Amino acid sequence: MNRKELIKQIETKESFLCVGLDTDIAKLPKHLQKHPDAVFEFNKAIIDATKDYCVSYKINTAFYESMGMKGWEAMEKTLYYIPPTHFKIADAKRGDIGNTSAQYAKTFFEVLPFDAVTVAPYMGEDSVKPFLEYANKWTIVLGLTSNNGANDFQQKKLADGKTHLYEQVLETVSSWGTPNNLMFVIGATKAKDRIDIRKITPEHFLLVPGVGAQGGSLKEVAAYGLNNDCGLLVNASRAIIYADNSGGFAAAATSVAKEYQTEMAEYL
Amino acid sequence: MNRKELIKQIETKESFLCVGLDTDIAKLPKHLQKHPDAVFEFNKAIIDATKDYCVSYKINTAFYESMGMKGWEAMEKTLYYIPPTHFKIADAKRGDIGNTSAQYAKTFFEVLPFDAVTVAPYMGEDSVKPFLEYANKWTIVLGLTSNNGANDFQQKKLADGKTHLYEQVLETVSSWGTPNNLMFVIGATKAKDRIDIRKITPEHFLLVPGVGAQGGSLKEVAAYGLNNDCGLLVNASRAIIYADNSGGFAAAATSVAKEYQTEMAEYL
Repeated sequence: MNRKELIKQIETKESFLCVGLDTDIAKLPKHLQKHPDAVFEFNKAIIDATKDYCVSYKINTAFYESMGMKGWEAMEKTLYYIPPTHFKIADAKRGDIGNTSAQYAKTFFEVLPFDAVTVAPYMGEDSVKPFLEYANKWTIVLGLTSNNGANDFQQKKLADGKTHLYEQVLETVSSWGTPNNLMFVIGATKAKDRIDIRKITPEHFLLVPGVGAQGGSLKEVAAYGLNNDCGLLVNASRAIIYADNSGGFAAAATSVAKEYQTEMAEYL
Repeated sequence: MNRKELIKQIETKESFLCVGLDTDIAKLPKHLQKHPDAVFEFNKAIIDATKDYCVSYKINTAFYESMGMKGWEAMEKTLYYIPPTHFKIADAKRGDIGNTSAQYAKTFFEVLPFDAVTVAPYMGEDSVKPFLEYANKWTIVLGLTSNNGANDFQQKKLADGKTHLYEQVLETVSSWGTPNNLMFVIGATKAKDRIDIRKITPEHFLLVPGVGAQGGSLKEVAAYGLNNDCGLLVNASRAIIYADNSGGFAAAATSVAKEYQTEMAEYL
């Protein structure tokens, strides 16, 4: 999906919501846990329940890998079930030397039909470039993440005494791609830093996790992050998919997703 | 496998060689490419051919993921084929927020019986800790990698004008674990920096890629990296597994692995 198509979806639905499918079998409603294909059945119900209110789904690969081959199968089936109107993100945080990153890019862009994959920047240019070589595919590089550990290295100041590591990452990585094939992960819990982020990357889409279970505010994210093309994909995972733990989980997911969408429509 | 057992293996074999199974089906000898289980058949032959000269195998997950479910199966079968005497590394470069890293740790330490997994440090403490919570398992954190991209961020100087980011990573991450459950990736192509690395992490094992296809020198690595417990696992992948592209590939792998082992015995 290219930038124009993504923006069109956002305008049509008045939403920049991404639903995170961090599906943990241990957290599913009891009646589903015994189903032989529990994870896919749950995801199917969540997708049906939320697709009118979101523009994107983010599959957190860790939760599928931890189920072995069965998990890989559930991930594939889920991916193919997502409607073609929705932007499909592999939240995989990959990154390695060039020949290895090329294999990861092949996995998520050729073997599997994802639109985007998240990538860690630590190993530098040749670890990111193989992902950027695919037309109409997106590389979403970690900038400033939503967790406490972001303070350990991302927030360190560099030799000029002013620039933080994450700012250097945004600036340097921006030069490797364009706002048409590159996004950045910026945690919702870091709203106060986002003004500066928009100075460095005014046009890029930002994938913003951390709203919901992690405590970030959608209002603050919108205030600092929106640009002329929207420029935001705000992700909520646990707050939507585990909104209710009973047979009514899908209706509860609809209700929370709709709340986010209604609030987003106001800000757009 | 714990530290004592690893050291014992190194002493017994007079080797600190790790063979990297970055098995790319497109690079296999032609007669094997048509085999329905080509990657496993190749790995099996490589393991048989090299196990007397190495103490460890490193499975590069990217090359298996890019084959989809069939790749996952080949990875599992390969892993179970590696003798219990050998230290088994998942070269996966994972790392995410706590609840997600916990899923990755489960994948490589519970679902699959790896001894160690490589982890990217960018997301900080809570992204690394879940891996460290497993007894007798190892977390191998990226320090200074062997690729050109290492210059982009890892070699940046921090606010004190002296410390490089990778040095800060070594120092900070060291405080999260011990030399009994934590190693660092230090590229063989960075020999001149390794004196300082041994000042920061005198006791830790270092996993050193970059010898062979990437051009690093084993002699330099040994000169700077060896400590009283050896403290090194030097990896070669392409130089061994693709030493020959014909029916004689296994014999060629034996020959290259033996050369490395002979040289290592001199330095020990």
